[in-house]
Amino acid sequence: MPDKILLGHGSGGRMTRELVRDLFCRQLGDVAPDSMDDGAILSADGKIVFTTDSYVVSPLEFPGGDIGTLAVCGTVNDVAVMGARPLWLSLGVILEAGIELDLLERIVRSIATKAREAGVKIVCGDTKVVEKGKGDGIFINTSGIGVLEHPLVPETIEPGDKIIVTGTVGDHGMALLTMRKGFPLKSDLKSDCAPLNHMLAAAQEGADVKWMRDATRGGVATVLNELAENRPWGVLLQENDIPLSDAVAGVSELLGLDPLYSANEGKAVLVVSASAAAAVLDVLKQSPYGRDAAVVGSIVADYPGKTVLNTEMGTLRTLGILASDPLPRIC
Amino acid sequence: MPDKILLGHGSGGRMTRELVRDLFCRQLGDVAPDSMDDGAILSADGKIVFTTDSYVVSPLEFPGGDIGTLAVCGTVNDVAVMGARPLWLSLGVILEAGIELDLLERIVRSIATKAREAGVKIVCGDTKVVEKGKGDGIFINTSGIGVLEHPLVPETIEPGDKIIVTGTVGDHGMALLTMRKGFPLKSDLKSDCAPLNHMLAAAQEGADVKWMRDATRGGVATVLNELAENRPWGVLLQENDIPLSDAVAGVSELLGLDPLYSANEGKAVLVVSASAAAAVLDVLKQSPYGRDAAVVGSIVADYPGKTVLNTEMGTLRTLGILASDPLPRIC
Repeated sequence: MPDKILLGHGSGGRMTRELVRDLFCRQLGDVAPDSMDDGAILSADGKIVFTTDSYVVSPLEFPGGDIGTLAVCGTVNDVAVMGARPLWLSLGVILEAGIELDLLERIVRSIATKAREAGVKIVCGDTKVVEKGKGDGIFINTSGIGVLEHPLVPETIEPGDKIIVTGTVGDHGMALLTMRKGFPLKSDLKSDCAPLNHMLAAAQEGADVKWMRDATRGGVATVLNELAENRPWGVLLQENDIPLSDAVAGVSELLGLDPLYSANEGKAVLVVSASAAAAVLDVLKQSPYGRDAAVVGSIVADYPGKTVLNTEMGTLRTLGILASDPLPRIC
Repeated sequence: MPDKILLGHGSGGRMTRELVRDLFCRQLGDVAPDSMDDGAILSADGKIVFTTDSYVVSPLEFPGGDIGTLAVCGTVNDVAVMGARPLWLSLGVILEAGIELDLLERIVRSIATKAREAGVKIVCGDTKVVEKGKGDGIFINTSGIGVLEHPLVPETIEPGDKIIVTGTVGDHGMALLTMRKGFPLKSDLKSDCAPLNHMLAAAQEGADVKWMRDATRGGVATVLNELAENRPWGVLLQENDIPLSDAVAGVSELLGLDPLYSANEGKAVLVVSASAAAAVLDVLKQSPYGRDAAVVGSIVADYPGKTVLNTEMGTLRTLGILASDPLPRIC
């Protein structure tokens, strides 16, 4: 095999087959079929959840993960927050001619590692190659299928319910920002990219979780805005209770950025009844991905349709939805 | 809305939501949910088929279709040739900043038209935007879910079985070739891009179809090579019986290209028992997409593992698998 991707690797001919067999299937090992085709036959009972996400993150590798880590965790989490057990992923890659096979191999190895951890199989795949200058290294689409186990019940949300965040907020977005070309500071920020399915399923086993969402693009503030939109109640967050790593706190302050709008790739936001909050928090904290979980606010009768922050200074601030993220291509 | 895609359309914030609502959902109409999210809950009984395909065709619009037509038909056909009824598609788009919204709108309209014809719903979607120069207009991934209805039985294939092609071969690849920048000839070639699911399901209703495959990248020769590989029997094609449009025949001869290796996006290859061949052909010919269907060869005890062509001149020629397609980005 050459050491770089050539246009022929996308032809569907022998070069494509060798790439799939010698790189993809070899690196994916037990999490993929022996010869990965573009389709798979699967057995599903009951209701299924179907999700899709394309990943165009830049740079392809970053502290805490790479585009492969992201492509598995992101889609696993999308399925999990719908109350489903993720089982199968598809893997569609668009490669730019000229990228190093070594890099691709590292990325596929990350896919295998995270799929194994999440307990999902990569059951079908597709490889395309575009000319140099017509892509950006590698784009990945993963679609996910899961079996619905604990349907969410957002219609039962009422004032008094508690809002839980499963850990420190803003890590992924801030880590990506400080990695970007030309960024003047070194930091020890790391992406929080992680598969949350086991932790969220455990949380749902113990207590009624009314609603969940992974707080990716747009961050915690954006998903809460989507939750509250057009509802007869509002969301009131307590800034003092929001878990923040020192590194994110430092960079946010320095740059004047709000970590509540910064992307997470290993954090979910949950709404639970007040009586269930302590038990859910206990379960979350038993996971390495939930150690810093905290109740960060409540559903309130005031401010219907709005997400409001009670700031450290005791003032109230409405958190609107971002028109556009100042930092493109974080996932 | 601006008339071009901006990076902010991929932010996950308000601009993304407006693009999804005002362009995608509006154009998709009844084939998509009112507000398209990245996940959907679906009910499936029995075995499901799951496929994925990314589309990077260049140019984005061509005679007979566009990347949207292709993204629906290609994935619908992938599901259908596994013996399943396609029901749901995901839609992941990667847009290059700067593309015209008008172009995107035409493409989404094609998606709607073909989804309606195929009887599938677009149930979940995702939109990402990359900087100008880091993509090529629009890349699309569609993953498909179908319910298995007529499982294929390739293990029952035996010498004497007939090979059917559902129509003229090579149209899509040749049409794309003559569209490419710098190609010196005008032609009236058109892509054959079409959803084959209804026709193939009808063919399977009437008779045992042992094996089917859509003959996309690599053409009829490549899918037959994949069929015969490592089998105790071979494939013998009769060149005289292979349906060819005059336009494809002309361009192929002029350029010295073999239409058997040229991509199709609306043709399938079937293997049926000799006794069923006439009935299957009858059913296929009732569809507008199967008018030119023909028996083009047989499974033979000779040439195990190989695909052999009995040429017009009466000589035998082995059809190998292409290492690499001379024409990149045809789908």
